[in-house]
Amino acid sequence: MMQQLRFGLIGLGYWGPKLARNLESLPQASLEIVADLNPLALKKAKGERPWITITDRIDDVFTSNVDAVVIATPVSTHFELAKQALLHGKHVLVEKPLTACVAEAEELISLAEQENLILMVGHTFQYSPAVKELRQLIQDGELGEIYCVEIERLNLGLFRSDIDVIWDLAPHDASILLSLLGKAPTRIEAHAHAHLHPSIYDVAHLNLEYDSGTTAHIHVSWLHPDKVRRVTVIGDKRMAIYDDTNPAEMLKIFNKGADRGVDPIVSYRHGAITIPHIEWMEPLRLECEDFARSIRTGEQPEANGRIGLEVVRLLTAAQASLRGRQQIA
Amino acid sequence: MMQQLRFGLIGLGYWGPKLARNLESLPQASLEIVADLNPLALKKAKGERPWITITDRIDDVFTSNVDAVVIATPVSTHFELAKQALLHGKHVLVEKPLTACVAEAEELISLAEQENLILMVGHTFQYSPAVKELRQLIQDGELGEIYCVEIERLNLGLFRSDIDVIWDLAPHDASILLSLLGKAPTRIEAHAHAHLHPSIYDVAHLNLEYDSGTTAHIHVSWLHPDKVRRVTVIGDKRMAIYDDTNPAEMLKIFNKGADRGVDPIVSYRHGAITIPHIEWMEPLRLECEDFARSIRTGEQPEANGRIGLEVVRLLTAAQASLRGRQQIA
Amino acid sequence: MMQQLRFGLIGLGYWGPKLARNLESLPQASLEIVADLNPLALKKAKGERPWITITDRIDDVFTSNVDAVVIATPVSTHFELAKQALLHGKHVLVEKPLTACVAEAEELISLAEQENLILMVGHTFQYSPAVKELRQLIQDGELGEIYCVEIERLNLGLFRSDIDVIWDLAPHDASILLSLLGKAPTRIEAHAHAHLHPSIYDVAHLNLEYDSGTTAHIHVSWLHPDKVRRVTVIGDKRMAIYDDTNPAEMLKIFNKGADRGVDPIVSYRHGAITIPHIEWMEPLRLECEDFARSIRTGEQPEANGRIGLEVVRLLTAAQASLRGRQQIA
Amino acid sequence: MMQQLRFGLIGLGYWGPKLARNLESLPQASLEIVADLNPLALKKAKGERPWITITDRIDDVFTSNVDAVVIATPVSTHFELAKQALLHGKHVLVEKPLTACVAEAEELISLAEQENLILMVGHTFQYSPAVKELRQLIQDGELGEIYCVEIERLNLGLFRSDIDVIWDLAPHDASILLSLLGKAPTRIEAHAHAHLHPSIYDVAHLNLEYDSGTTAHIHVSWLHPDKVRRVTVIGDKRMAIYDDTNPAEMLKIFNKGADRGVDPIVSYRHGAITIPHIEWMEPLRLECEDFARSIRTGEQPEANGRIGLEVVRLLTAAQASLRGRQQIA
Repeated sequence: MMQQLRFGLIGLGYWGPKLARNLESLPQASLEIVADLNPLALKKAKGERPWITITDRIDDVFTSNVDAVVIATPVSTHFELAKQALLHGKHVLVEKPLTACVAEAEELISLAEQENLILMVGHTFQYSPAVKELRQLIQDGELGEIYCVEIERLNLGLFRSDIDVIWDLAPHDASILLSLLGKAPTRIEAHAHAHLHPSIYDVAHLNLEYDSGTTAHIHVSWLHPDKVRRVTVIGDKRMAIYDDTNPAEMLKIFNKGADRGVDPIVSYRHGAITIPHIEWMEPLRLECEDFARSIRTGEQPEANGRIGLEVVRLLTAAQASLRGRQQIA
Repeated sequence: MMQQLRFGLIGLGYWGPKLARNLESLPQASLEIVADLNPLALKKAKGERPWITITDRIDDVFTSNVDAVVIATPVSTHFELAKQALLHGKHVLVEKPLTACVAEAEELISLAEQENLILMVGHTFQYSPAVKELRQLIQDGELGEIYCVEIERLNLGLFRSDIDVIWDLAPHDASILLSLLGKAPTRIEAHAHAHLHPSIYDVAHLNLEYDSGTTAHIHVSWLHPDKVRRVTVIGDKRMAIYDDTNPAEMLKIFNKGADRGVDPIVSYRHGAITIPHIEWMEPLRLECEDFARSIRTGEQPEANGRIGLEVVRLLTAAQASLRGRQQIA
Repeated sequence: MMQQLRFGLIGLGYWGPKLARNLESLPQASLEIVADLNPLALKKAKGERPWITITDRIDDVFTSNVDAVVIATPVSTHFELAKQALLHGKHVLVEKPLTACVAEAEELISLAEQENLILMVGHTFQYSPAVKELRQLIQDGELGEIYCVEIERLNLGLFRSDIDVIWDLAPHDASILLSLLGKAPTRIEAHAHAHLHPSIYDVAHLNLEYDSGTTAHIHVSWLHPDKVRRVTVIGDKRMAIYDDTNPAEMLKIFNKGADRGVDPIVSYRHGAITIPHIEWMEPLRLECEDFARSIRTGEQPEANGRIGLEVVRLLTAAQASLRGRQQIA
Repeated sequence: MMQQLRFGLIGLGYWGPKLARNLESLPQASLEIVADLNPLALKKAKGERPWITITDRIDDVFTSNVDAVVIATPVSTHFELAKQALLHGKHVLVEKPLTACVAEAEELISLAEQENLILMVGHTFQYSPAVKELRQLIQDGELGEIYCVEIERLNLGLFRSDIDVIWDLAPHDASILLSLLGKAPTRIEAHAHAHLHPSIYDVAHLNLEYDSGTTAHIHVSWLHPDKVRRVTVIGDKRMAIYDDTNPAEMLKIFNKGADRGVDPIVSYRHGAITIPHIEWMEPLRLECEDFARSIRTGEQPEANGRIGLEVVRLLTAAQASLRGRQQIA
């Protein structure tokens, strides 16, 4: 019989309520306690789920009898809360990014291994059916050798005062890149600009290079008239575009390309476009299922701590590359 | 009465025939002589216009009685041919980019001034009705202070062996930027990659900064599954997208934006989108008309030598910024 | 102080759960009792809302102390259930279409008037912000005299065995037309085809004419590869397209048209396209709010019984026009 | 060696100059003489092609030594001009529709057979590579049994005073339908409306039925804000959309459908979308090539007189179906 799982949740901001809805709908699982400092958020949660415990003292979650704690709070608090949860013997799912620096992420990973607990990060896109399909195509060699990947994540808002656009949006793209290519870049150089608020970057371009010769570019922006969520993968056999804003045509595979030659130095192939049917499943639901499965089996989840660490490493390196070149008042 | 103009044309590759068609359809104008080294191209030209002189000796154009010479040859030959034409007292229209280096562009400008001749560069987009409309909106303050401009010029091909993707595609974007903002950037840093052919960049990202705080980003690529020709302008009052591939909605103005505040630090405005009706006129036709008008009036054309010089300056700086950081085998 | 409202709900199929969610979130309102014949649906409802009464005897709803009954059952049962509810002194909201024939709709309207109760029909599109905006434009004369309206409601599925595509999809379009034009057509002729199942129409075209000279065409289909939800309004001053599948550009107003002349007999105007910003609100939520408001104030709701009757009249006339011309085995 | 062909052209309106350009670029072919009543059009033609004969007497074309005559004049003149051309022993290509009534079309076909001359109609879409690809898919059974075909041909203008929207636009759609299904409908019923000019229909809907059970619907309009050129084919195996306004995705094949069952009565299949690469070739060029090939080989062209007759038959039947039901002042 399947083990019953009890969850606690810290943070009822943007992601908290979505996680709550998914956690409580898992089979043989229950959301037992939620913590937040905002009394209105707690009252709303209690109104919708009269049977749960609400609290404004986070320690109550750690000392409760839950099996696992889900942390959906600002980045700066991730490390301390996740550490406390692990020290209290709880499995942990932290919202992305895992921590604000590499050393903290490494410490959490060590601690989880030592305590034999699951440490997972909310890199939802690892569970997107379209990302999985695209990754499979790349792994199967359907696109050939990968020349480059171009990612855009643009729209108007939402400005945050605690982190900049790189730490807000690029974790998605960093985890998608890791998922697609199965490896981390070896070189990164970023350009970022703070147009609206003098101390917060709102537009950034990240240039990445891999030892294999593959290159990547990530463009994130809080200042764009359209909502753009696009990943373009250029292989030497085929090309693909994953557009998360177009449910009917989320993944397009172009059977076209350019081939090296002598005279002419390049020749072109033009074939059909294929749009596979992708069965829609909510990525957050699949993420919560993977968390529950990992707790029950002891196997690492897809979006495990090491993925979270690689993402933090990439964001930190991007940030460091900015420092040498430009200042922000 | 309007002065009759006689034109000579050097180069019958991609642009040459298009220029020929437009030049000969100008009022009170005639195409008298065309030169190319390719006998087939010459034969075809003669077949279509039995009355013109064809030649494989370029000097014949200079020594002919034409008023103006149009040069549509590879970049590396622009300087020498334009110089000869000017020295023979001919007005000159050179295809973009004007020259392969700044010093040559400056020399041509001086020479033209000295000889009192028109020197014009084929920056066709200066004549695009959509670019003009967008420039007017910016000049009239309709978009407010400009935060940033994002330009993409992507598609599959066409690889060239004489120049890289920056020198091939970015002249368009550099001239559009100059046209829209009316000033040159003060800082540029480029990233470029050669995926297909070891010695030729096929994908590049250019980061530009202006003294005013405006930033710009140009993405050019010969390796992309879709044809993208998009300019996004982000102002503090409004935003605009110019999409050259969508004739029915070439320019979209978004009455939306983000405003600085205290708490919250940013607030949002969401208003209507407007798509002005833009009367279509072929930019190359307008360019040729401007050349003829300049010759007749002595006034500088819109796409004059100084614009051409600024574009060469920008491309050269982009290239130089690459050198310090990465090598190509 | 606002009167507390108690609701009962009959039917937990497609619309029932959506209605339940909206009813219970109204201020000063509660869902007290739900009835269905399916024990699984009842169990699920109880699981989500442990405090409500569930029953498989519909009479329990009528004899309960609720103020209003919401009926979300197959069309064939609407009349009998609504009549019973009214006879028990309950206000009634019935899913669309109101009834399966005109006489029944008229009887319900009379009964509601006699008993001084609200009778409302679930014509959700009457509450769509985009439909309201478009109706306002028409009423204000912004589009001029209306020449014609073209409506398409197409996609793959869902086949129903109790009603055909006209009775399933066209109620939406009939209510939108009534809302936009504020009047009923005086002539209708339909063409319908049963391609998949011999006894059920799956594609239909309805041609409508109004005394004013305005014409309309409704195309509904269960057999189409794309999801299409489009209303095109052609006025003599402007034209508009309302596309319910495109949230970012739901309503497009084209400042263009054709004007009668002598020589030429027609001249054209081409102006800007405007896409107003439409604040999104869930139409079903607004519908439920209007039901509550009507009960409290005694004023007729927008989607009142007379609108429901006009829709039934139109569907019945469409069906009758088929009969003379073609048989279905 | 290939026989040299000499062409004469009557009519320099919309299609005439396009036909001229294509005819003269055929191998071993020359345009010898053009006739029109408009002296300006003749002067322009002479300016572009100083070597041709121009005339305002149409008989000059018939009495010239050309092998074939191309007729691009108003419909009402087609019969008389084509007849004269055939009687003078000339092969004939007439713009669509072939004639204004069935009897005339039949007479021309008989005459051409009797004289052993080619009679061809300018049904350009028969030569569209996308239409050919779609026809091949249908013939190969890739779409399965065809349930229905929906065609839309809509945009603003161009009003004509000599014919209505059915005779202006529907010839394209009638010829596409004939090409795709390889057979003529057995029943047709049309609805048409004259919104702008009291005596000229500007919007029409044609309902067609085939003996096989296939149905079709053609919607043509001169009053629409967007340019729409769309053909949707619904088969029991697959569905397809041919969108002539989208060069990059002109033909989309949807591997999806609905299958008859018992309980549920219908089940759904959802598979990939495929967009074949279609090599673009100008249909008018292919049409002219087919005319030349037919003259040389004596084989019937694809767009032969019988196709033209079927189109006239369909348009005439559509018109007749209107008569019984509605009058136009």
